[in-house]
Amino acid sequence: MNFSSDNWAGATSPVMASLARHASGFAPAYGSDPLTLSVAQRFRDLFERDVKVFFVATGSAANALALSAYARPGGAVFGHMDAHIRVDECGCPEFLTSGNRMVGVPGQDGKMTPDALRQTMEAYPDGVVHHGQVAAVSLTQATESGTVYTVEEIAALKEVATSRGVPLHMDGARFANALVSLGVTPAEMTWKAGVDVLSFGATKNGCWCAEAVVFFDEAGAKGFEYIRKRAGHLFSKSRFVAAQLDGYLAEDSWLKTAAHANEQASRLGAGIVQKGGRLLSPVQANEVFPVLSSEQVTRLRAAGAAFYEWPVAHDHPQALKDGEVALRLVTSFATDPSEVSAFLDLL
Amino acid sequence: MNFSSDNWAGATSPVMASLARHASGFAPAYGSDPLTLSVAQRFRDLFERDVKVFFVATGSAANALALSAYARPGGAVFGHMDAHIRVDECGCPEFLTSGNRMVGVPGQDGKMTPDALRQTMEAYPDGVVHHGQVAAVSLTQATESGTVYTVEEIAALKEVATSRGVPLHMDGARFANALVSLGVTPAEMTWKAGVDVLSFGATKNGCWCAEAVVFFDEAGAKGFEYIRKRAGHLFSKSRFVAAQLDGYLAEDSWLKTAAHANEQASRLGAGIVQKGGRLLSPVQANEVFPVLSSEQVTRLRAAGAAFYEWPVAHDHPQALKDGEVALRLVTSFATDPSEVSAFLDLL
Amino acid sequence: MNFSSDNWAGATSPVMASLARHASGFAPAYGSDPLTLSVAQRFRDLFERDVKVFFVATGSAANALALSAYARPGGAVFGHMDAHIRVDECGCPEFLTSGNRMVGVPGQDGKMTPDALRQTMEAYPDGVVHHGQVAAVSLTQATESGTVYTVEEIAALKEVATSRGVPLHMDGARFANALVSLGVTPAEMTWKAGVDVLSFGATKNGCWCAEAVVFFDEAGAKGFEYIRKRAGHLFSKSRFVAAQLDGYLAEDSWLKTAAHANEQASRLGAGIVQKGGRLLSPVQANEVFPVLSSEQVTRLRAAGAAFYEWPVAHDHPQALKDGEVALRLVTSFATDPSEVSAFLDLL
Amino acid sequence: MNFSSDNWAGATSPVMASLARHASGFAPAYGSDPLTLSVAQRFRDLFERDVKVFFVATGSAANALALSAYARPGGAVFGHMDAHIRVDECGCPEFLTSGNRMVGVPGQDGKMTPDALRQTMEAYPDGVVHHGQVAAVSLTQATESGTVYTVEEIAALKEVATSRGVPLHMDGARFANALVSLGVTPAEMTWKAGVDVLSFGATKNGCWCAEAVVFFDEAGAKGFEYIRKRAGHLFSKSRFVAAQLDGYLAEDSWLKTAAHANEQASRLGAGIVQKGGRLLSPVQANEVFPVLSSEQVTRLRAAGAAFYEWPVAHDHPQALKDGEVALRLVTSFATDPSEVSAFLDLL
Repeated sequence: MNFSSDNWAGATSPVMASLARHASGFAPAYGSDPLTLSVAQRFRDLFERDVKVFFVATGSAANALALSAYARPGGAVFGHMDAHIRVDECGCPEFLTSGNRMVGVPGQDGKMTPDALRQTMEAYPDGVVHHGQVAAVSLTQATESGTVYTVEEIAALKEVATSRGVPLHMDGARFANALVSLGVTPAEMTWKAGVDVLSFGATKNGCWCAEAVVFFDEAGAKGFEYIRKRAGHLFSKSRFVAAQLDGYLAEDSWLKTAAHANEQASRLGAGIVQKGGRLLSPVQANEVFPVLSSEQVTRLRAAGAAFYEWPVAHDHPQALKDGEVALRLVTSFATDPSEVSAFLDLL
Repeated sequence: MNFSSDNWAGATSPVMASLARHASGFAPAYGSDPLTLSVAQRFRDLFERDVKVFFVATGSAANALALSAYARPGGAVFGHMDAHIRVDECGCPEFLTSGNRMVGVPGQDGKMTPDALRQTMEAYPDGVVHHGQVAAVSLTQATESGTVYTVEEIAALKEVATSRGVPLHMDGARFANALVSLGVTPAEMTWKAGVDVLSFGATKNGCWCAEAVVFFDEAGAKGFEYIRKRAGHLFSKSRFVAAQLDGYLAEDSWLKTAAHANEQASRLGAGIVQKGGRLLSPVQANEVFPVLSSEQVTRLRAAGAAFYEWPVAHDHPQALKDGEVALRLVTSFATDPSEVSAFLDLL
Repeated sequence: MNFSSDNWAGATSPVMASLARHASGFAPAYGSDPLTLSVAQRFRDLFERDVKVFFVATGSAANALALSAYARPGGAVFGHMDAHIRVDECGCPEFLTSGNRMVGVPGQDGKMTPDALRQTMEAYPDGVVHHGQVAAVSLTQATESGTVYTVEEIAALKEVATSRGVPLHMDGARFANALVSLGVTPAEMTWKAGVDVLSFGATKNGCWCAEAVVFFDEAGAKGFEYIRKRAGHLFSKSRFVAAQLDGYLAEDSWLKTAAHANEQASRLGAGIVQKGGRLLSPVQANEVFPVLSSEQVTRLRAAGAAFYEWPVAHDHPQALKDGEVALRLVTSFATDPSEVSAFLDLL
Repeated sequence: MNFSSDNWAGATSPVMASLARHASGFAPAYGSDPLTLSVAQRFRDLFERDVKVFFVATGSAANALALSAYARPGGAVFGHMDAHIRVDECGCPEFLTSGNRMVGVPGQDGKMTPDALRQTMEAYPDGVVHHGQVAAVSLTQATESGTVYTVEEIAALKEVATSRGVPLHMDGARFANALVSLGVTPAEMTWKAGVDVLSFGATKNGCWCAEAVVFFDEAGAKGFEYIRKRAGHLFSKSRFVAAQLDGYLAEDSWLKTAAHANEQASRLGAGIVQKGGRLLSPVQANEVFPVLSSEQVTRLRAAGAAFYEWPVAHDHPQALKDGEVALRLVTSFATDPSEVSAFLDLL
C-alpha cells in the first residue's frame, strides 16, 4: 500500500525493454543520434505540428530551463502560490534564470483564475524599473492539488499572459494524467489553447528520468541548446533519454499507465468519501488529498500503508478540525488495484 | 571500427542487469533509498575512508558543481589550457559558480607542471581585489591528451594548491582508465596524494549516465545537496543512478572494462608507430593521438573507420607537416579487438 | 511644496563643502586613501566598537551586497511583505545573491512581528532540500510605512533569526530618521539589539550618493571587498564617498537634518489629523501616509503640491472608501517649514 | 611628482562648480530629472546622431553592463589579453553576464590585430554547443599600453566582429585622451568606425565618478534600464552624475584636460628617451611605460616621485635586462608641468 509518490516507482517494462534494446552498438553522442532524432519526430506527430523538442532528465531542469529561455533582467514569472517552481525547487528557477522571481498567485484547488493572475501582475506595471518586468506565466498541469485545468481555463490564462506580452509555460510533470483526465489531444491541451512552451514529464508516469522541453514558439527555442548545456543538462549518451521515451510512447503505453493511475486515484477518492472522509480537492488525476481522522491514519500506518501528511493552512476553506489529519495519496502505473482495496478496507 | 568517442558506446551488461533488477518496487525518492545508501557505503569501502558522495548524471554537472562548492566571489580556478572545464562545457562551470574564471595553465601532453601552475597563479596575488582570488586547482585524470598524472605529480600539484590555500579537484571523467594505467588504489590516486574532491566518472566506461562527486574534504561537502538541487541535478528516481553504479562496481566490472579499453588503445598506439606513424602524446589510457598521412586517413574512412580529426597548433612541438593529419582515437569497453586489428591492417 | 521623496532633494551644505575641500590633490584610489580610512574610524567611534565598514554609493547595492555576504545556495531571506528588497529593487538582491529568494512576511504598519516571522520561516524547515535553506532576516528601519522598530522589537526579531541560525540585517536607508525618532544611540539600535550587518543610508538624508555596509559580525565581512568589486561597486576615486560622509557626520549634521525632516513630518501628520484626515500608519520618522478626499488632493495638486498616491490593498484594515485617496508625503532636510504650513492650509 | 594613476586625482573645477550649482532644489529621482535629460541630449549632439545613453558611476559597471546587454548563454567576449575587462575587474563582467567568458587575444602594444582576433575566435565555431557561442568583441581605447587604435584599425576589428555576427564594444575609460590623440570627432572614432556600444569614461579625466553607456545600436539598448537597476547601478539622486558630465562637457573642458594630460605624457616620453631610457610602447595618450635603470628608479623614489612598477613578461619583445625596471607613469588634468620637468631632471 504505497501511496507516497509517483516517483517512488521504478520504470515500466516497455521503458526497460527499450533501454535494453538500445544498450549496445555505437551512436553519436550529445543528441545527434538517430534514435533521438526519431523520437523528436514522434513529438511532432504527437502534437500535430512542428515543434522544437529538447530532452532533459529532471523535471527541475525542464521547468527552470524552459523559463530561462524567456528570462528577463528583473523578470517576474507568475504561477500558483503552491506551484512546484515556487516552492519545491530550492530556488532552481531563480538561480538558472539569473534571479527572476517566482511570484505566487492565489487560487483554490491549485488553480490560478484569470482575475487573480491579472491582479497579481498589476503590481508589475510595464515600464516601472523598480518592480522589474513581467517575464512569463506558468501553470501546472495536473496541478499540485491533483486537479486539472480545462482547455478553456488554459486559454483564459493565455489571454492574460498575452495582454502583458509574455508567454505561457505549462509544467506538465503529470502531463499524461491530465491529458487522460480531460480526454483531449496533446495539441488541444497545449498550443491550441495557447501554451508556448511545455515541460513534458515522463518520469512520474513510468520512465527512469526522461523529460522534454517542447517549444511551440520557435523564437523561444532559439539558442536553447546553449541554455541546456550551460547548466550541465546535456547528456553525452543522450540516446538513453530518447530510448526511455521511445518505449514510453510506443503503443500508447504512456496513456495506459496514466489511465491506470488516474483510475486508482479515482477509486481511492470515491471510496474515502463513501467511508465518510472528505477531500480537500476533487480527484481529477492521480493524486488524492483526503481528510481522515487520526485514528484512521494510525490504523493505516500500522497496516503498512505509506503516504505523506499534507499541511493545511488555517485559513483554508477546508481547514482541519481537531483530530483530523490531511494526507496526500499518489497513485502510479505501479499501483496494484488490490492495494487500493486494502487501503479502503482499513478505513 | 568506431573510435569516435567512449561516449558513443551504450551501457555494459552488468549495468543493464542492475537497472533491470531494480526497476520494479517502490523506493524513497531523491536519494534516500536503500540502494543509494548502500552504493555510498561502497564508495567508502573503495576509498578506504569516510567520504561524502553525491550522485549526479553528467560529467558537466559533476565538475561544475564540485567547483561550485569552492567558488569564491571573483574566484579563479586553475586547470590545464585544454581542460574540459575550460574548453568544452559551454561556460557551465563559469555559470554555476556565478562567474568564477577557468584560467588555463600551459603544459605538454595535457599536464600542468607545478612550476607552470605556480607561475600562472602569480598573476592572482592574495589581497589584490582587482584580480579576484584563487579558488581551486583542477586536474584531469586521465588528461585530455590521453596521458596520466603519476601519484607523485598529483602530490606536487597539491603542494602548489596548498601554498595558495585552495583545494585540489580531480576531474576523473576517465578515472578507471587512469587507475588501471597506474596500477594503484583509488585511495592512492586521490586523497592520499592530496585530492580534496573528485568527479568520479562512470559514464564513459560503461554506464548510461552515472557520475559521483566524492568529497574527501568534509567541510567542502557541507551544503552540497543544496548546490546540486539548485541547479536541477537532483533526480527523483535517483536509485537509477545508484543502480548503474551498483552494476558498474560489482565484481570489478569497471576495472575490467577500463583495462580492456586501455589495452586496445595501447595496441592501436603500438601498431601505428610500427607502421611508421607518430603519436602526439604517449598512450597511457584509452585515447590515441596519431599523426597519419592524409592518404591513410582517406583509406581508413573509405573502409568505414570512424574517428575525429584533431587540431594541432602551429607552435606545437609536434606540429603537422604538409600531408599529415592528426586524429583522436578513443577505445572503450565496446571496442572489439578485431576492430583494432582491422584498423591497423588498413595503414 | 515638494513631498515626492527624500531622494528628490540634493546635497546639504556640509556635504558639498567637504566634497569641495577634498577635490584637489592626489589620493590613492580604490579605498586606501587616508580620508576613507579616517571616516571608517569615525564609524567605529559612532558604534562604540570595532566594525568592518565598506562604502558604496547606492542603497540597492548596500542591501543586495550585504545580503550576498550571507547568501546560501537555495537561500531564503525573510523581510516584510512591503520591504524595498522584495518590491523595489528590480530583483537586484535575487540577482546579486545568485538566486536567493526574498520571502515576504505579513505585518501591520510595515513591521514584522516575531510570530509572523517564525511562522513564515516554518515553510523552510532545516534539512529539506526542496524548500532551500533560510539565509537571513532583514528589517527596514525606518519601515516602508514610516514607522520605527523599537529596540525591543529588533531584539525580538533577532531571537527568531538566531533560533534558525541566521543573521539579522538592517536596511537603514532612513537610519538617521529612525535613530532620532527613538532617541537611542547607534550602538543601541544595532548590534546591542542583535543586528549583524547594517546598510547605513546617508543619501536620503543629505548626501549625493553615500551608503555604508557596516558589519558587526566580523566573519560576515570576510571577503566582502571581493563581493563589492565583483558587482562593479568599488569606486576608483572612492574618497568622494568618504568625503560626503565626512561632511555628513561632522558636527552632528546628519542628526540635525534627520530631526528636521522628522519634525516636519510630524507637523504634517498632526495637522492632517486635525483637519479631519486619517493616517494609514503613525508618523514616526519622515514619511506620512494620509488618507484624504479626492477634492483635497485635487486642490493640493492645483496649488503645486508634489507627492505620490499610495496604493492600499482591499483587505487593508484602513481600506479606502469611495472618494478617498491615500498619499505618501516625504520630508527631508530640504523641506521648508513654510511648505508644511502651506500644505496644511490647503486642506 | 605623482604619476601613480589618473584616478588618484580628484575632480576638476568645472565639475565641482556644476555639482555645487545643482545641489539645491528638488528634482525627480532615478534619472527622469531635466538635467539628466539635457545631458543625454548633449550626447546626441556630441555624436551627431540619436544615441541611447545611460549614466552609471563606475567604469566597471559601464563595461560589465554594456557587455551584459549582449550576453548569451555560454557566451565568449573577445578582448586583448591585457584588457581591463579580463584582468582587473575581479570577474565583474563574468558575474554580471551570468558567466560569459572574457577570452584574451594576443597583440603588441595592447592592440588586437584583425588576424589575431579572427584566429582566436576560430576556437568558438558557430553551432558547436560545447564551446559556447561568440557574444561580442571589446576593444580598449586608449589601450592598456597607452596606445590608441586608429579609426581604420577599429573599422578592421568591426569587420571581424561582423563576420561572426557580434557587436563591437569600446571600453572608453580614456576616451577623451584617445580622441584628442587622433584628432577626430567622437562620431568618427565610434559609430562611423563600427562601434555598437561605448563605455564613455569621464572619471579618469576629471569627474568624481561619471561614466555613460552609449548605445549606437538601438536594439542593444532595449531593456538596458532593467540591466542597470538589477545590478544596483541606478542612482536615486542621479542628477549628480549628470551634473558632473554637464560641467565636464561644457566649453570643451574635457578636451582641454585630456590634451593637457596627453601633452605631459608626451613630454615625459620624449624626455626619457632623450635621457637614454627606452619605452615599452609608443606614447599616444596619457600613459608612459619607460624602462629605466634601478638606480634611476631609486633616485626618483627618493625624491618623492610616485608611480607603479610594471611587470614585463619574459617573452616580451622588450624584455628587461638585469638592472632594468619598467614603470607605468600616468598623467592627468592634475599633472603640473613642473612635475614632469622635475621628474626628467632626476634621470
